[in-house]
Amino acid sequence: MTGATPFIQQALGLAAQALCLSNPNPRVGCVIAGGDGAVLGQGFTQQAGGPHAEVVALRDAAARGHDVRGATAYVTLEPCAHQGRTGPCCDALIQAGIGRVVASIADPNPQVAGQGFARLRAAGVEVEVGPGAAQARELNIGFFSRMQRGTPWVRMKAAASLDGVTALANGASQWITAPAARADGHAWRARACAVLTGIGTVLDDDPLLNVREVATPRQPHLVVVDSRLQTPPTARLFGVPDRRVFIYAAHEDGTRTQALEARGATVIQLPNAHGKVDLPALLRDLGPRGVNELHLEAGHKLNGSFVREGLVDEMLLYLAPLLLGSGAHGLASWGPLQALAQGLRMEFHDIQQIGPDLRLIARVAGRAQF
Amino acid sequence: MTGATPFIQQALGLAAQALCLSNPNPRVGCVIAGGDGAVLGQGFTQQAGGPHAEVVALRDAAARGHDVRGATAYVTLEPCAHQGRTGPCCDALIQAGIGRVVASIADPNPQVAGQGFARLRAAGVEVEVGPGAAQARELNIGFFSRMQRGTPWVRMKAAASLDGVTALANGASQWITAPAARADGHAWRARACAVLTGIGTVLDDDPLLNVREVATPRQPHLVVVDSRLQTPPTARLFGVPDRRVFIYAAHEDGTRTQALEARGATVIQLPNAHGKVDLPALLRDLGPRGVNELHLEAGHKLNGSFVREGLVDEMLLYLAPLLLGSGAHGLASWGPLQALAQGLRMEFHDIQQIGPDLRLIARVAGRAQF
Repeated sequence: MTGATPFIQQALGLAAQALCLSNPNPRVGCVIAGGDGAVLGQGFTQQAGGPHAEVVALRDAAARGHDVRGATAYVTLEPCAHQGRTGPCCDALIQAGIGRVVASIADPNPQVAGQGFARLRAAGVEVEVGPGAAQARELNIGFFSRMQRGTPWVRMKAAASLDGVTALANGASQWITAPAARADGHAWRARACAVLTGIGTVLDDDPLLNVREVATPRQPHLVVVDSRLQTPPTARLFGVPDRRVFIYAAHEDGTRTQALEARGATVIQLPNAHGKVDLPALLRDLGPRGVNELHLEAGHKLNGSFVREGLVDEMLLYLAPLLLGSGAHGLASWGPLQALAQGLRMEFHDIQQIGPDLRLIARVAGRAQF
Repeated sequence: MTGATPFIQQALGLAAQALCLSNPNPRVGCVIAGGDGAVLGQGFTQQAGGPHAEVVALRDAAARGHDVRGATAYVTLEPCAHQGRTGPCCDALIQAGIGRVVASIADPNPQVAGQGFARLRAAGVEVEVGPGAAQARELNIGFFSRMQRGTPWVRMKAAASLDGVTALANGASQWITAPAARADGHAWRARACAVLTGIGTVLDDDPLLNVREVATPRQPHLVVVDSRLQTPPTARLFGVPDRRVFIYAAHEDGTRTQALEARGATVIQLPNAHGKVDLPALLRDLGPRGVNELHLEAGHKLNGSFVREGLVDEMLLYLAPLLLGSGAHGLASWGPLQALAQGLRMEFHDIQQIGPDLRLIARVAGRAQF
């Protein structure tokens, strides 16, 4: 069975409420329903260190005075079987007397996948897997990427005119898109575990690169690709509270490193053979740091490097109904190409009008199959 | 009343069947309905010189043996009152004994607007105007433009990657978009009265620029902007039967003119002060030649000239989910701009996925209000 039942749909809706909250844990929702179809309890995964969806739903049922013995728990991801910062959800479900678990999809972590289901079955709990699998995975595309590839899901964000211009030759770029698109862009930052930019953007714009235009329970980390450690310790980006800053460099410089670390940054040396930051290694380094979705918001040069090295998974592109002509900065500079087949071919995943602008999500073909 | 009744909706559907047929006449549909709501006859405007929608509908009713005396004629444009290539539709309706006319909108020709309605009313026919007005005008945006501004509706067509690239630096551009988008592009050529291109495209690609991928009852004219009369008399474009070719130049050259006219072209001298073709004058010249919709399909330089001179009304843009990087040709080259406000601001009018590609229609704000 692969279609989503109403309870699984409800659980998926709950999971979506954890979009900016549960990182780096997956976004999971849980609905506990009685045999008569009444909802006894529901919940979604809280911030890291807080309770998972199943425990929230059990507590909700208890708070409402409901007896969940023999009830069915609908959950959008396999209940965990390991002792993390919280106790295993399987044990909580078993102890509460849940009779049946309907789960959308197995935990993608190769080291734990299936253990939760096995533990439930061993305790006599009936287990069904599959309803809502595609949506549950899509909602956690970054978590699946990190668990299965070891690296984040890389989403390259840009805002451009219809002729692909992100800034005029003189640097003017505020504002190509309207406020609605800019707020939407902040909502995409908010769901990411980290925002990544380059030293060029830091030096040119001195940006905060935090979430401002929408409410968020937490700020994503900031990652700066800064081969020569040129980030000024006075940069505004250090003024955002409650967020970690990772600076990836390709050249050792003890004095600068010390100054940046004094501002709270973590400086990591990852040079490649060309004296630049090794971008594939950077992604492999971000995986173990708990980065599921990496929101790439950089200039055309760093974007071009990510494209050239085949590291972009999808593009989040805001297009304004505007032409800006020639001699300006594009989305991503690499090439020049000799044939169209050398371009980065994607597939449209989502197309929406956002205020007067257009939002396109395009995915590199086959890239989500890991 | 401005909403469309079912009979007017049916008449609008008929009018749409004249999309590639009635040029340079407007696309008009007509439904004749009896008092009991039965459809007695219907039709749409035929090719130029053929009968208008009202006459086709009257003939249809007669062929089906229906008596239309006292019936209502639903028609998407004011019936004509003048003797053109066909007799006035007003007289035909009056002579047939039609009791009531419901028309979407008045004829936009300032010299005739309202005369049809006046003639009908003078003959005792009840007249209502308004239902379906917006759709009827939209369907004839080029006819309204030519009648009210004296110039065609200028639609700039392009196919590009998401980063605004229409061709690689080495000229490669086949194919950025997929077959479905290319066929759709031919459908837009087919509805235009003329396709316009520049000498650069003629020399680089030696294109036919006719309608091939879709069926069409007629070929649009071809207009070439060719300041120095460089179009080779051997160009493939002369090999398309049943279409007129207009070559606009800025330099006299009797020998070349003679050679091109020998191939059937009409050569028109329209220099501006810079020794180039005077593009606003070109549009004013195309109006009296019966060009309603002008389909601009040119390279980035001529596109840029049309944009710079403020002559583009809307953009028909096919975007492939593809990045092609830097150093390539863009949509329209002009500028460089000093401020974003100098860009060409449009509004999205239609957004559709066509196969794997995206089709955007964006209109210059306020441009359709003439």
